Amino acid sequence: MEIDLIELAKKSRSASNQLARLSTKTKNEILSAMAESLRSEEENILQANAVDIQSANEKGLSSAMIDRLLLTKERINSMAEALEEIVLLADPVGLMSDFKVRPNGLQVAKMSIPLGVIAIIYEARPNVTSDAAGLCLKSGNAVILRGGSEAFNSNVAVVNALHKGLEKFGVDTAVITFVPTTDREAMLELLKLDDYIDLVIPRGGEGLIRFVAENSRVPVIKHYKGVCHLYVDKDADIDTALRLLIDGKTSRPGVCNALETMIVHKEIAEKFLPLAEIEMKKRGVEIRGCEKTKSILPEVVAANDEDFGTEFLSLIIASRVVENYDEAVSHIEKFGSNHTDVIVTNNLRTSQRFIRDVNSSSVMVNASSRFADGGEMGLGAEIGISTTKLHAYGPMGLDALTTKKFVVIGEGQTRHKIQ
Amino acid sequence: MEIDLIELAKKSRSASNQLARLSTKTKNEILSAMAESLRSEEENILQANAVDIQSANEKGLSSAMIDRLLLTKERINSMAEALEEIVLLADPVGLMSDFKVRPNGLQVAKMSIPLGVIAIIYEARPNVTSDAAGLCLKSGNAVILRGGSEAFNSNVAVVNALHKGLEKFGVDTAVITFVPTTDREAMLELLKLDDYIDLVIPRGGEGLIRFVAENSRVPVIKHYKGVCHLYVDKDADIDTALRLLIDGKTSRPGVCNALETMIVHKEIAEKFLPLAEIEMKKRGVEIRGCEKTKSILPEVVAANDEDFGTEFLSLIIASRVVENYDEAVSHIEKFGSNHTDVIVTNNLRTSQRFIRDVNSSSVMVNASSRFADGGEMGLGAEIGISTTKLHAYGPMGLDALTTKKFVVIGEGQTRHKIQ
Repeated sequence: MEIDLIELAKKSRSASNQLARLSTKTKNEILSAMAESLRSEEENILQANAVDIQSANEKGLSSAMIDRLLLTKERINSMAEALEEIVLLADPVGLMSDFKVRPNGLQVAKMSIPLGVIAIIYEARPNVTSDAAGLCLKSGNAVILRGGSEAFNSNVAVVNALHKGLEKFGVDTAVITFVPTTDREAMLELLKLDDYIDLVIPRGGEGLIRFVAENSRVPVIKHYKGVCHLYVDKDADIDTALRLLIDGKTSRPGVCNALETMIVHKEIAEKFLPLAEIEMKKRGVEIRGCEKTKSILPEVVAANDEDFGTEFLSLIIASRVVENYDEAVSHIEKFGSNHTDVIVTNNLRTSQRFIRDVNSSSVMVNASSRFADGGEMGLGAEIGISTTKLHAYGPMGLDALTTKKFVVIGEGQTRHKIQ
Repeated sequence: MEIDLIELAKKSRSASNQLARLSTKTKNEILSAMAESLRSEEENILQANAVDIQSANEKGLSSAMIDRLLLTKERINSMAEALEEIVLLADPVGLMSDFKVRPNGLQVAKMSIPLGVIAIIYEARPNVTSDAAGLCLKSGNAVILRGGSEAFNSNVAVVNALHKGLEKFGVDTAVITFVPTTDREAMLELLKLDDYIDLVIPRGGEGLIRFVAENSRVPVIKHYKGVCHLYVDKDADIDTALRLLIDGKTSRPGVCNALETMIVHKEIAEKFLPLAEIEMKKRGVEIRGCEKTKSILPEVVAANDEDFGTEFLSLIIASRVVENYDEAVSHIEKFGSNHTDVIVTNNLRTSQRFIRDVNSSSVMVNASSRFADGGEMGLGAEIGISTTKLHAYGPMGLDALTTKKFVVIGEGQTRHKIQ
């Protein structure tokens, strides 16, 4: 099948203009209708999903992969509920800010507006289809969804259901456009369409994200990995440090805001490390220590240079003992990934320095790295996380899907005197 | 000469960490010292400039180009004064905003930080060298300057002077890095270094900007052109409309915020257009009209489709008569460039609709398009203008050279209960 991606993106662009002008009330009614459609189309979605599951089994995909792919009545209902939760979020569009009056009487302000057209490129999970569509719709953006081949049939069925919700309100279904191919060449072509697409968000493994970043002419918001550090300062409360270590490393080791390295000030290392070793051992965590760590904890595995800067995503933590605060900050600069870094200290001045010196997207004092999350930080919903600094940095809420235009109101002012 | 651009960018990245931690006071003292250096190095700069001017003459560059290239004592002094004006601007770094307290007691806020390393790719004018260096320094960013071949010697001399200012404060001169080649292959290599460079701003002709946008893996902030519209609504005050037309078209036709098209509601066209024709004729402006315009002004040139959407940059204006408000907005959507669009109306509801419906980077009511400018809009200084929506949209002040990180302060909170 030959697909005209330019035509598809043009239609999406044109539909985005209609969407940008809808009232909050209408957008919310559409979201509720889309949730209802998901429920009423449940049978079709489950049938399509069964086809995907069958071919996943035939291809011998891992059971973890297949579980991520699987839809059930309960999971479809959760997708519908997620849309209903988006109804409750504040509309990020049309907010005025930065008011000022110029000496010549001009009133200048900024107003938040949708970005326009957002492409989401993602892998297996079919719930991303409805989540992303809902968040883009609420923020007034048309979305172009390009899902992975494993979930192709499921995604088509979900999009069909969402379109039924849109049609009830006479809204152009191109506001939720599904790319009807998983061909890599087609993705490459899509990534060149910067005249029609304002932003690409890749969601998936590092390979996919690098491929998108390296080939896109459209701006990309991305994060590759989370190498999060816990710095236990000499003025740390040891019990707090242990709690943050346990929560950060063991509560969910496979996610990006889990800890990968602890950095310990030498003046507290002899007290802290033996207790840390006990807690880690109890929970099945392997410590890989630098030489100084090993001089205190002779039983731990010796860390090599690669262990620092690695996202283990498993029950392993690297440990480094530092001479002073500056060495800790330098370590984070060198090995960190701009995701989340934490200091444990009761020293006000050190905490202030850390906040100023470490420019990771989330910098924390005496709090678990696991709080680096849109929901936990009060953004209401999370469309993704950015560890590059342009446009958004850190967990992204709905407002990251908007930009601000200037609004100027005058009474006939001119820049030059008219003769 | 073989240049190791990766090494150059790495040094710039490393120097940016030092710069990001300087106090406002120190940054201001450096800016003043750089201004003094420009003055004390005047002779060296003029000698280097003479070499550039001579080879420009030999190559037969236009006199306009040569004038842009030429430095004089006065112009060097103006460059120094521009740095001194940057001292007076507020520091955009370290500002806290978006404070909230979460139900678990976590304090969450955002803090503005420098982007890191900014590459500026520009053409002839040597004053861009010191202006860009000053704005980046004030906002805590290292800058990599890649100037054009015509001004190569002048740029080197200016950068040497700026480095003398930096050296007085023991600041790594890599915070202002000049790329010592104008080779296009080297520029291509630079544009791939997204591990070290956070943002590229191209400044120059459309050809340069497109080349950068199409070849960069580093995020680019850009604008190609300004096709600005004046929509004279049926409820416009005719005198205001005439004044804004005259100012927008004739006060400086060669700049991007000048008007290129007037759109006139049919109910006011018979009154407005003959008066507009008189004013335009008086000022040597050619009108290119649609059929309906020509039915009212039979003497004007017939517009073809290309005239709408063209940035004339000269004393030509296209004219289109529309049936209604919606046709005006559709025209702007189709032919506009997301730069600046203006409505003239006394109808409150129509003005509100226009502000909401038109998503250009500057939307104006009863004010001249010529006010779309960082200085005029109260941003203090303008580093450029963006007509793409990511990160910045419209005139960019110092704050566009920053991003915001999350700061979280806790008292040992964990996401999961620690047993």
